[in-house]
Amino acid sequence: MNEYKFFDNKGPFNISEIFFQIKSNEKIKIFDIKTLDQANQSDLTFFDSLVYLKDAKKTKAKFCLTNEKLKKYLPSSCIPIVVKNVLYELCKVTKKFYPDADVDFPDQSLKPSNKTLFPKVNFGLNVLLGKDCLIGENTEIGSNAIIEKKVVIGKNCIIGSNVTIKSSIIGNNVVIQNGCKIGLKGFGFIPQKENNIKFPHIGKVIIGDNVELAANCTIDRGSIDNTIIGKNTYLDNQVHVAHNVKIGENCMIAGQVGFAGSSIIGNNVSIGGQAGISGHLRIGNNVRIGGGSGVVKDIPDNTTVMGYPAVPLKEFLKNKRVWVIQLIEKK
Amino acid sequence: MNEYKFFDNKGPFNISEIFFQIKSNEKIKIFDIKTLDQANQSDLTFFDSLVYLKDAKKTKAKFCLTNEKLKKYLPSSCIPIVVKNVLYELCKVTKKFYPDADVDFPDQSLKPSNKTLFPKVNFGLNVLLGKDCLIGENTEIGSNAIIEKKVVIGKNCIIGSNVTIKSSIIGNNVVIQNGCKIGLKGFGFIPQKENNIKFPHIGKVIIGDNVELAANCTIDRGSIDNTIIGKNTYLDNQVHVAHNVKIGENCMIAGQVGFAGSSIIGNNVSIGGQAGISGHLRIGNNVRIGGGSGVVKDIPDNTTVMGYPAVPLKEFLKNKRVWVIQLIEKK
Amino acid sequence: MNEYKFFDNKGPFNISEIFFQIKSNEKIKIFDIKTLDQANQSDLTFFDSLVYLKDAKKTKAKFCLTNEKLKKYLPSSCIPIVVKNVLYELCKVTKKFYPDADVDFPDQSLKPSNKTLFPKVNFGLNVLLGKDCLIGENTEIGSNAIIEKKVVIGKNCIIGSNVTIKSSIIGNNVVIQNGCKIGLKGFGFIPQKENNIKFPHIGKVIIGDNVELAANCTIDRGSIDNTIIGKNTYLDNQVHVAHNVKIGENCMIAGQVGFAGSSIIGNNVSIGGQAGISGHLRIGNNVRIGGGSGVVKDIPDNTTVMGYPAVPLKEFLKNKRVWVIQLIEKK
Repeated sequence: MNEYKFFDNKGPFNISEIFFQIKSNEKIKIFDIKTLDQANQSDLTFFDSLVYLKDAKKTKAKFCLTNEKLKKYLPSSCIPIVVKNVLYELCKVTKKFYPDADVDFPDQSLKPSNKTLFPKVNFGLNVLLGKDCLIGENTEIGSNAIIEKKVVIGKNCIIGSNVTIKSSIIGNNVVIQNGCKIGLKGFGFIPQKENNIKFPHIGKVIIGDNVELAANCTIDRGSIDNTIIGKNTYLDNQVHVAHNVKIGENCMIAGQVGFAGSSIIGNNVSIGGQAGISGHLRIGNNVRIGGGSGVVKDIPDNTTVMGYPAVPLKEFLKNKRVWVIQLIEKK
Repeated sequence: MNEYKFFDNKGPFNISEIFFQIKSNEKIKIFDIKTLDQANQSDLTFFDSLVYLKDAKKTKAKFCLTNEKLKKYLPSSCIPIVVKNVLYELCKVTKKFYPDADVDFPDQSLKPSNKTLFPKVNFGLNVLLGKDCLIGENTEIGSNAIIEKKVVIGKNCIIGSNVTIKSSIIGNNVVIQNGCKIGLKGFGFIPQKENNIKFPHIGKVIIGDNVELAANCTIDRGSIDNTIIGKNTYLDNQVHVAHNVKIGENCMIAGQVGFAGSSIIGNNVSIGGQAGISGHLRIGNNVRIGGGSGVVKDIPDNTTVMGYPAVPLKEFLKNKRVWVIQLIEKK
Repeated sequence: MNEYKFFDNKGPFNISEIFFQIKSNEKIKIFDIKTLDQANQSDLTFFDSLVYLKDAKKTKAKFCLTNEKLKKYLPSSCIPIVVKNVLYELCKVTKKFYPDADVDFPDQSLKPSNKTLFPKVNFGLNVLLGKDCLIGENTEIGSNAIIEKKVVIGKNCIIGSNVTIKSSIIGNNVVIQNGCKIGLKGFGFIPQKENNIKFPHIGKVIIGDNVELAANCTIDRGSIDNTIIGKNTYLDNQVHVAHNVKIGENCMIAGQVGFAGSSIIGNNVSIGGQAGISGHLRIGNNVRIGGGSGVVKDIPDNTTVMGYPAVPLKEFLKNKRVWVIQLIEKK
């Protein structure tokens, strides 16, 4: 499933075609760009934050875009390409491999759904399908929905009205309610004074079996990585899931929760309404996050947190008035 | 209006067909499942939280699903059916009566709007209507809107583009702006390790006269109860109203406010942007809730609250710095 | 661009036709209604809050709706029309000039897009266009999008699926992702017990070059003023921008941020996810607002703020525990 691609890869390129600073007699070809943990010996990867130190130490990538400070952590099998701005260089090279992934061009291959091509799928009215979609039997697709090219949808799914799906692989028995926008490009770009450089989003959205997404949710596809929603996880209305977020299995995400990019959420996590999860965090298994909380730090397994910024529940309750009074009285 | 049904009731069933633990020589038939306050002598109800004690004491239901601790509060006319997990058993029995209410299957009866059937309604392009809709004169329905079967819309309404409406009864002079999703199933289910059990939502959305809903709001229908928005109440963009919420008359709800399930909001309530209201609360009349507040407790009439969690305004202001300083200086 | 109008102006009217309290032998005609800073000698303006004192002192308007307390600040060239409720009277007179701007009637002029009229525009399927739209070359418009009458869209834009645009002027190279609702009436009305009076929204939305709006954003048009998003500003998913808000250039607005009405945001401002900005504020240039913050006061240039309510970052950090401890230890 990880190898299924929605964007054309213009590679391979010789490494010296990509980075002129690499002087290599051998013509080493780079086939793809992947994250530290996904890359293999024919890939380029990138390492720009200590958050990913563990993955960096074990990466199998041949080359790695990184900076002066971080290069020492890479294994000897991986050749560092040291640059000032890792994301800027990554953006440039990713555009070379995938020139069409930085803007969500409307799918030119869309056509009205054709019952003869999908005899076991139930289509509403005005459903539009891109070429090479795969849709499982007994799936129902509501009116005015748009399923873009190559999207995979499993069996027994319900796709609501006015839903749009792009660059996504969706399991069986999934329910996606009206108005959800799945698989669009995330909020990634290199700020520039006159005209920001849009970061290519070559990843996808992967949604597990038995997932339910309520109305008007937005699930962005991954940039280099994928965005994943695990089996049997339910999202309420108007939830926002940014690029590269991975939500585990059996989670309950209440209305209007927002996930910033690249955070990893464990299994059996429940999150109250309107809570926000900052980017690049690791939230453990069986974590409970109170409604309206703002999570800005990693949370270990089996913890209940609340507040803005979110702290363990006991601390939150102490902080509220009682805590101050206690401090004063102890003096 | 309360008796108008959107889902087929497969009942009545003999009580002993539903609950094998009930041994009754008489063949008592149960006709429907209703809340404590709505049920009458031919209905089954449920009681699982002291929040509903007042209604429990006065219920007219013949049978009531409840637990060991709560059964003592029921009137003698009501036969308790004691179970471990009230909502789980309620879910099972509700599915028996209403097998189609736990998933929002696309409406198979949708057809392009037909001016000859509704000569006094103005339709945009590509409007889809389900069977047996009722739409009042002088109502305008924007392009790409979907009005599912049996929906009732009053006179002089404006329904925007890309709106979907299901299981709803809408008054006169109502404005619903583009992208609203009205009447979908709420966020209710019985968590299970492999595959959550979806709770049937047999209720509806009832919207009073002169209501205005701004763009991209989501209003879920009730589970056993209804979701209600009272006369002349205005909601701004991206408001989320969960199942069973009742908002009173003449309220002003600013953008991105979220209501968790089953809360009851009084009349003349104003709520600032992005505030969140937890579930099962009672908010009085003439209450003002500051923007960004998180309301986790009932609020009496005529109160202004603010903060996270929300407290009366005076307390909120005290808590901010000044309050601590005062405490220290008093020592 | 400011003079391009989306609503028909029924004026001019003699000032004595509008306000019977004005006894004027001369027949002074009022041509339009504008804000203090935009009005010229043939216009009526309004002044109801000291927030706009600076503009009031310099207004070129002939007449100004105001109250007893504020009238003294107007220049002698401007005749005050003193009323009890400025917004109520403004609403009435604006409806006289613009009777169709208080409700978003579906555009009756919509027709399926016609490639022969726009040979250089790429249309998806089921795109609907109102009369007199202007769309620049090389722009692509996704399926099921609705562009209402007189909307102007520049060159090289991408308009996503299920987007609706009304009363808007959009620059070049703009990307608007799926599900955005642009240019609808804002949340403005005069509360009344039985039936609120809807405030006419005669303004528009102006979006600068190179702007990107992610999925399901809602951008309301201005009431008397315009709503503006400056060049090269990017908004993430589900952002809510209320009427009259002006966002500067090169800003980064993360997911689910909400702006209440009439606030002015500088250039190079970055705002973290789920932050809320209250109404009628001035946020300076180069301001950074932390995720989840609630901004309730003006913020000077080059400031980083965080918290609810938002305070400068240093103060926020101090307030969290450390601050209280320090205070106590100093005693």
